[in-house]
Amino acid sequence: MTDRLTAQFAFLQEIDRLKGVTRATPIGDNSRPENSAEHSWHIATYALVLADQAGPEVRIDRVIRMLLLHDIVEIDAGDMPIHLAHDAEAHAAKEAAAAERIFGLLPEDQAAEFRALWDEFEAAESPDAIFAKSIDRVQPLLLNLASGGGSWIEYDVTMEQIDTRVGEKVKRGAPRLWDHVRARVAPYFGTSR
Amino acid sequence: MTDRLTAQFAFLQEIDRLKGVTRATPIGDNSRPENSAEHSWHIATYALVLADQAGPEVRIDRVIRMLLLHDIVEIDAGDMPIHLAHDAEAHAAKEAAAAERIFGLLPEDQAAEFRALWDEFEAAESPDAIFAKSIDRVQPLLLNLASGGGSWIEYDVTMEQIDTRVGEKVKRGAPRLWDHVRARVAPYFGTSR
Repeated sequence: MTDRLTAQFAFLQEIDRLKGVTRATPIGDNSRPENSAEHSWHIATYALVLADQAGPEVRIDRVIRMLLLHDIVEIDAGDMPIHLAHDAEAHAAKEAAAAERIFGLLPEDQAAEFRALWDEFEAAESPDAIFAKSIDRVQPLLLNLASGGGSWIEYDVTMEQIDTRVGEKVKRGAPRLWDHVRARVAPYFGTSR
Repeated sequence: MTDRLTAQFAFLQEIDRLKGVTRATPIGDNSRPENSAEHSWHIATYALVLADQAGPEVRIDRVIRMLLLHDIVEIDAGDMPIHLAHDAEAHAAKEAAAAERIFGLLPEDQAAEFRALWDEFEAAESPDAIFAKSIDRVQPLLLNLASGGGSWIEYDVTMEQIDTRVGEKVKRGAPRLWDHVRARVAPYFGTSR
């Protein structure tokens, strides 16, 4: 048991570093960039609150587990803003190596369990993963809106790009949620459709 | 549905402010104080990883929900370091008023559900709440240890005080966990018993 706890605490201490990974989106009062640890808390709570937007086949507690773990790879790979052009394949390889290393700190059974959950999230094919991805894409929009533009300004983003890069993904998991969020976001870009 | 979503997003936006509430404990690299939002993420993940330390009657997904919500009242009431002498009754009243206001932003059914979960956590009587409280007390010890003393230095804390203020509570929910953690913490205070 002691070896097991030693491995578990090695993991729990390592993931503390997620608090130092910054994102493109500012926190709501625009005082500083959000970090990936507090982002993970925020979207896990989003999933809890917005559970009634998920289809009946979605298990919210699995979604919450996924969201708690989904960004841990950023400790090695960094956060990649969706509006920044990048080599997706190279970045995915970096993240997979990070998953190997960081989940690998855990006892074998948990390493395999959490890695499978992370792989499922990344694949975005299961109902739980599709809903989790929807939630993950919605939260930065609300923060950008609250902070007066946030990463939209930095990356010179258009409503069309939001429809393509964000809307298409949110609609897969939570179509009514997208209708609501889009209606809030569109006026910022001077459009209502 | 739109009214419901409007209320839900009002809550989700308000709780963003938890990212600005600082705690007595520094993050592991000792570069700055931890904030209550990233703390909430860290301990929800603690609960997930340390689930095998919980008794068989504990439902870990309920514990995780509790831990996601447990500190939200600090937006109004602030974080109260356990080693700081304070008027516990006055602080509890402040937190209850905060729960009323902040959970009150949600649709009625969710406001009642989340408030009940928060009340259960605060009461620390159910197996889920007792385990959640154990986890909440353990994480700051590991951060203080990692950062070279943290709030132990600031509040001139002794091992005896940790046994009383922390150990007694952790033992209620996770006795083997306390044995392990105490053995790691004691050398810092120059004691092994």
